[in-house]
Amino acid sequence: MFLSRRSSRDKASQYVRGVTFPSHLRKAQQGNERPKDPKLWPYFQDGLRRIDYVLTYHVQKPQSTRKQSSKSCLCCKFRREQSNPPAHEDPELAAQEQRLDYHDDDQRLRREEFEENLREMGLEMEREEGKYEVSHGSSIVEKVNMFMQKVTAPLQPNVGENRMENVKHLSYPFSREKMYVILILSLQILYEEWASYSIFYKYQPIGLIRKYFGEKVGLYFAWLGVYTQMLIPAAIVGVIVFLYGCATVEDNIPSMEVCDERNNITMCPMCDRACSYWKLVTACGTARASHLFDNAATVFFAIFMALWGQQLCSPFMFTRTLVAAVHQLLCLYILRAGNVKLTCKDRMPAYMTIIICVTLAIVFGVVLYRVSIMTALHMSSTPTFRTNIRATVKTTAAIINLIIIIIMDEVYGAIARWLTIMEVPKTDKSFEERLIFKTFILKFANAFTPIVYLAFFRGRIIGRPGKYIYVMGSYRMEECAHAGCLMELCIQLCITMLGKQLIQNNLFEIGVPKLKKMLRQRKIDKKHQEELNKTLHRHEKDHFLGPFVGLNPEYMEMIIQFGMVTVFVASFPLAPLFALLNNIIEIRLDAKKFVTELRRPIAVRAKDIGIWYTLLRGLSKVAVIVNAFVIAFTSDLIPRLVYQYMYSPDGTLHGFVNHTLSYFNVSHFQPGTEPMEPMHLGYKVEVCRYKDYRDPPWSATPYEFSREFWAILAARLAFVIVFQNVVMLMSDFVDWLIPDIPKDISIQIHKERNLIVELFMKQERGKKYRNTIGDPSPQPLRSRPSSQA
Amino acid sequence: MFLSRRSSRDKASQYVRGVTFPSHLRKAQQGNERPKDPKLWPYFQDGLRRIDYVLTYHVQKPQSTRKQSSKSCLCCKFRREQSNPPAHEDPELAAQEQRLDYHDDDQRLRREEFEENLREMGLEMEREEGKYEVSHGSSIVEKVNMFMQKVTAPLQPNVGENRMENVKHLSYPFSREKMYVILILSLQILYEEWASYSIFYKYQPIGLIRKYFGEKVGLYFAWLGVYTQMLIPAAIVGVIVFLYGCATVEDNIPSMEVCDERNNITMCPMCDRACSYWKLVTACGTARASHLFDNAATVFFAIFMALWGQQLCSPFMFTRTLVAAVHQLLCLYILRAGNVKLTCKDRMPAYMTIIICVTLAIVFGVVLYRVSIMTALHMSSTPTFRTNIRATVKTTAAIINLIIIIIMDEVYGAIARWLTIMEVPKTDKSFEERLIFKTFILKFANAFTPIVYLAFFRGRIIGRPGKYIYVMGSYRMEECAHAGCLMELCIQLCITMLGKQLIQNNLFEIGVPKLKKMLRQRKIDKKHQEELNKTLHRHEKDHFLGPFVGLNPEYMEMIIQFGMVTVFVASFPLAPLFALLNNIIEIRLDAKKFVTELRRPIAVRAKDIGIWYTLLRGLSKVAVIVNAFVIAFTSDLIPRLVYQYMYSPDGTLHGFVNHTLSYFNVSHFQPGTEPMEPMHLGYKVEVCRYKDYRDPPWSATPYEFSREFWAILAARLAFVIVFQNVVMLMSDFVDWLIPDIPKDISIQIHKERNLIVELFMKQERGKKYRNTIGDPSPQPLRSRPSSQA
Repeated sequence: MFLSRRSSRDKASQYVRGVTFPSHLRKAQQGNERPKDPKLWPYFQDGLRRIDYVLTYHVQKPQSTRKQSSKSCLCCKFRREQSNPPAHEDPELAAQEQRLDYHDDDQRLRREEFEENLREMGLEMEREEGKYEVSHGSSIVEKVNMFMQKVTAPLQPNVGENRMENVKHLSYPFSREKMYVILILSLQILYEEWASYSIFYKYQPIGLIRKYFGEKVGLYFAWLGVYTQMLIPAAIVGVIVFLYGCATVEDNIPSMEVCDERNNITMCPMCDRACSYWKLVTACGTARASHLFDNAATVFFAIFMALWGQQLCSPFMFTRTLVAAVHQLLCLYILRAGNVKLTCKDRMPAYMTIIICVTLAIVFGVVLYRVSIMTALHMSSTPTFRTNIRATVKTTAAIINLIIIIIMDEVYGAIARWLTIMEVPKTDKSFEERLIFKTFILKFANAFTPIVYLAFFRGRIIGRPGKYIYVMGSYRMEECAHAGCLMELCIQLCITMLGKQLIQNNLFEIGVPKLKKMLRQRKIDKKHQEELNKTLHRHEKDHFLGPFVGLNPEYMEMIIQFGMVTVFVASFPLAPLFALLNNIIEIRLDAKKFVTELRRPIAVRAKDIGIWYTLLRGLSKVAVIVNAFVIAFTSDLIPRLVYQYMYSPDGTLHGFVNHTLSYFNVSHFQPGTEPMEPMHLGYKVEVCRYKDYRDPPWSATPYEFSREFWAILAARLAFVIVFQNVVMLMSDFVDWLIPDIPKDISIQIHKERNLIVELFMKQERGKKYRNTIGDPSPQPLRSRPSSQA
Repeated sequence: MFLSRRSSRDKASQYVRGVTFPSHLRKAQQGNERPKDPKLWPYFQDGLRRIDYVLTYHVQKPQSTRKQSSKSCLCCKFRREQSNPPAHEDPELAAQEQRLDYHDDDQRLRREEFEENLREMGLEMEREEGKYEVSHGSSIVEKVNMFMQKVTAPLQPNVGENRMENVKHLSYPFSREKMYVILILSLQILYEEWASYSIFYKYQPIGLIRKYFGEKVGLYFAWLGVYTQMLIPAAIVGVIVFLYGCATVEDNIPSMEVCDERNNITMCPMCDRACSYWKLVTACGTARASHLFDNAATVFFAIFMALWGQQLCSPFMFTRTLVAAVHQLLCLYILRAGNVKLTCKDRMPAYMTIIICVTLAIVFGVVLYRVSIMTALHMSSTPTFRTNIRATVKTTAAIINLIIIIIMDEVYGAIARWLTIMEVPKTDKSFEERLIFKTFILKFANAFTPIVYLAFFRGRIIGRPGKYIYVMGSYRMEECAHAGCLMELCIQLCITMLGKQLIQNNLFEIGVPKLKKMLRQRKIDKKHQEELNKTLHRHEKDHFLGPFVGLNPEYMEMIIQFGMVTVFVASFPLAPLFALLNNIIEIRLDAKKFVTELRRPIAVRAKDIGIWYTLLRGLSKVAVIVNAFVIAFTSDLIPRLVYQYMYSPDGTLHGFVNHTLSYFNVSHFQPGTEPMEPMHLGYKVEVCRYKDYRDPPWSATPYEFSREFWAILAARLAFVIVFQNVVMLMSDFVDWLIPDIPKDISIQIHKERNLIVELFMKQERGKKYRNTIGDPSPQPLRSRPSSQA
């Protein structure tokens, strides 16, 4: 916060974290009328002057803990007996700490200078010393870190000192008149009016959140609120689309044809040797289930969601969020001008690593996905089981895949952090942006690779009976079920989304902090703890809470969810509903965490949600094209339409199923791949059917792609072009219709501007008589002090 | 300028236009040391105080002409003998003037109040009366206007008075200390350093232009300069692509095959009855010429130009333009915040009319195009001529079409103005934006309809031999030449672009003003004129110049040119070169016009180029998709590639021409459509060929679209998707690489911001000791007065 250069980032963090446990702090005198309860509010030793800010840190050598306020300042100096870092610290920083011993003198100098600056600014200070026993950090983690550190030592940055520039900045953050007069009261209100599940339907008290936690946290919750609110219409439309699918399942001609016993279509085996021919009618259940997600309403829903995604990222919504959280209009725009982007030179080193990593992640993802399918297949041993109860197999595979994804998520997070440290970004902000970008790319690739593979590659490059494509010798590429891959895509999406939300949110966000707290408390025996509870001051108790580790995990979770909701929404219309339900809990869960589980974060100024906005916009763009491809290629919509308008003899879908199936002469099987039990169905099969558009064996060009194949391919591609451009056009049109700035806010801006102009006019009029021949250039307007002034 | 409400727009315009011709102005005393030449600078009657601002107007009843300055003010009052408006006036306003007689009293009151306000502000004024004979306005125009006015009377807005609000605004524009101390000097410098063709390679003196003509004009020239500069690389690449086409024309296998006498392919007749069979070898010339524009480099060039177009509209370039012209950094951003868009309710009435108009314009454009082709065909009478020397016919048709386009341009301009007046926009700015938008849409539809028709519809829906598609009974849809429509598209584009530039620029922009000037001068006999030249003051002479009618025609011309350069660049790589050559002249031409031909415009503040920027961005987006379609569907690139990789026996293009031609059995001609001279080629034709992918007559499905047709269609559509998304991705990537704000400017902004922070810190420090318990909210930063202060 107060040292913006990266070169001093690691060192600076030493000041802030640590332990405040002043065991022999003298009680504040109670004779005054103001200080009622010293536990609720810390006072200076005189018991009159209140403390605004407490700085604590732990030290290797004699160092100090400080408390300071705008009005007065108390510094507590104490010695710690053990030099090992506490268990809850960032292990990477802990490792670096070992190497920073020789920096101690420098630190002390820096600290003294800092204190000097604070005093110069008119702050009052008191110091306090304290002793505190801290348990050893996890020695395994430490050892691993030591090893890692040695391995990467040649790569570690050797950054020089930049002390001269820092001198000036050190005193800046304390020059504001910060007055948290309602500190304790706020926390109480927040706990009652915000961090409670029973009031999930209410708006969040954003103003209070901002005041208590700072703008950055306020912006996150404001954005989360807007997003959740926007999810409501999406969820409603999604449910309607799903219900439409349920209602029309009985009228769906293709699934009726599949289920019709009279059609009696013999299909080619699904795998070599072990599988045999099968009747199409056995796929009846899947075909009917597919219709729930693959119907005409899906196209409408996909367009709706594409526009929805674009609107969520529109300046209109964004301004609403900003104004709700930051509540400063003109100042906002002045600040926004400074959004200078990184140049290409700054970014180049990141590209090489990230491209390699992403490629590896994608390949790894596909391999893992296929491993999970194989595992699921082996778990179900009978051959008939394999072909028939596909949904069970798919569900098992998806669950295995989900577990792998969650594990890899953590690994990728670590890789991203390691890569970013390698790059030595110049500022904290740049460090954060790079870290977020890398983490996002890797986690996104991790979560979406199986889904993309399933949607676009699975069942596309399988070859044909008699000439299947094999990978790694004898492993045949999987086919999709008869009704297309959409059903399987849907299962995969559903499990990944629900599973990620349930496991990551509930287990990681609720369970792990609880566990950590328990572990911390176990070390202090219970009696001692009760005693402490009575004697300890508020700020001392707060120190036992977990440290604030930033908002990035929260944002990341939401953005992956946003990706699931928009990018593949065509295949799973219930996604917005699940997201909505999750978010309603998520808001209160995060609120509880912020209010009761974490130390109060240092308030950070923020002008917008930063790189997340860019990522959201990017995702909403990707969503348009992906949805177009899902509808065109994964669903059966286009083939149905083409059949209906080009090939159907009576203009209906009757005969569609037969049209999608090609003929195969069983005598053309490659030797060794024909089924072991050819008489499985009770009769000798001469011609079996498979799902593809190819010429029959008796034509001039057997098994070549037929004219229908190319016609349908052209129709699919045409659909993609039309969909993409229509959505883009509509999105531009909606953008054009909806003003950038909501009407009420624009009126407010207009009012403020008028006041400025009047102020300006008055000044000018006063000047004119004094100074008639002046500067010919028009003078810039001056922004008026905020309206409260 | 000083009345911003639309309701008083028409009335306000009465003040400013008119005649200053004070024939009995007393000479300024020459005894002073300062006033050297009263012709160069107007002085008050005392000859000491200089005049800054001259207001003139003509009146129905006794009214006044005013001259006023920030320091002192001279008003010249005079009576005019004739009540008819001068010939150079806007005819529409002239017509309205007739109806405003009863407003005269109101005008006088308003004027007196205005003068009173000026005096209150501390301005000095002098009045002067003068007599001036003005000839009658063109009586035909007047009569037409009177008629139009009567016809549209019920539609005319009946806007009420809004006097109370105007009172306050009247005095505002004069509260600035405007000092044009280098007025005459500037004009001299501008004339020498800017309005000269011999210095076309130099940068424009944008700072001086802005100072003399105001920000709005400065922005136009700054933008034009940036655009012209950006055209240089585009022109170079375009020429290279064209040269590549020239160099490879000998190696092009398809055109070699067309020209090969041995192939001896008999083609089906191009028209019913009158035309006969023809040899493919006669299309040799066209095939070779087509290769110049239709080769592999075109794809590269189209991608390049799409990125180029997007870059031209990028924030980077835009900021450069802005900073060059406006040169105020922080002020700029404060102002930009107020860019409140219109709401959908404001826009709705415009949509209905514009949609109808555009539809009509497009239909009309196509009809006119086809009429011009028919005319050209009739002009060349012999049947053989029709089929062979197609290029000549096309050129004639394009020229006829061009003339129609130029005429319709003027008509559409008038329609747009009329429609906008019907809508009664609330402010001048909104009036201008609506007018621009409508004019743009109509003129764009006018200029591009023939080109779009030619590129995408011509030759697509012709049917096939034996089953041609006829419109309006017996008129057959035109085919393209053998090598595709690209050649014809190229001719059309080339002639439209060059013609529009040559005729509209040179004839309309140089010729017409010259003619007007001549007409004006003819009315005053020569001797009298010379005498006047000696006695007249500078500001009196300036009044004989044409009035400034706004920048919209200049912008419109450039934006249509930008459209030509980017939207159809795939078919005409030399477009950027022509545009560059035109613009180099255009800058100096406009400069000359502004310096010598027009009255000095009233300086108008502008924060950006306004709606033009939106239109430019829109065009650059449209360009991507249009270019994708041109390459995929109009050029032969995709069929060539598909043939080479899917059907060619040896992987080369040998046999491609044969592959593109389908067979037709001449016995299948519809009765009455077979050629009258079947033996024209000297032998009996049984099977002729035509350019399409259809099954031969001897197949099971004669004349159906063949498998190749669908495969190529799929490939074309796939290309469109890939092209569009690759360009969009690359464009986003380039945007990401290039910072929004150029580095030098961002450094400057950073410096200014630091100064502000320091100022703020100083103020805060001063306040702290006085006011320790203050406002908890952070105060907005104050923008520093401009650096000159």
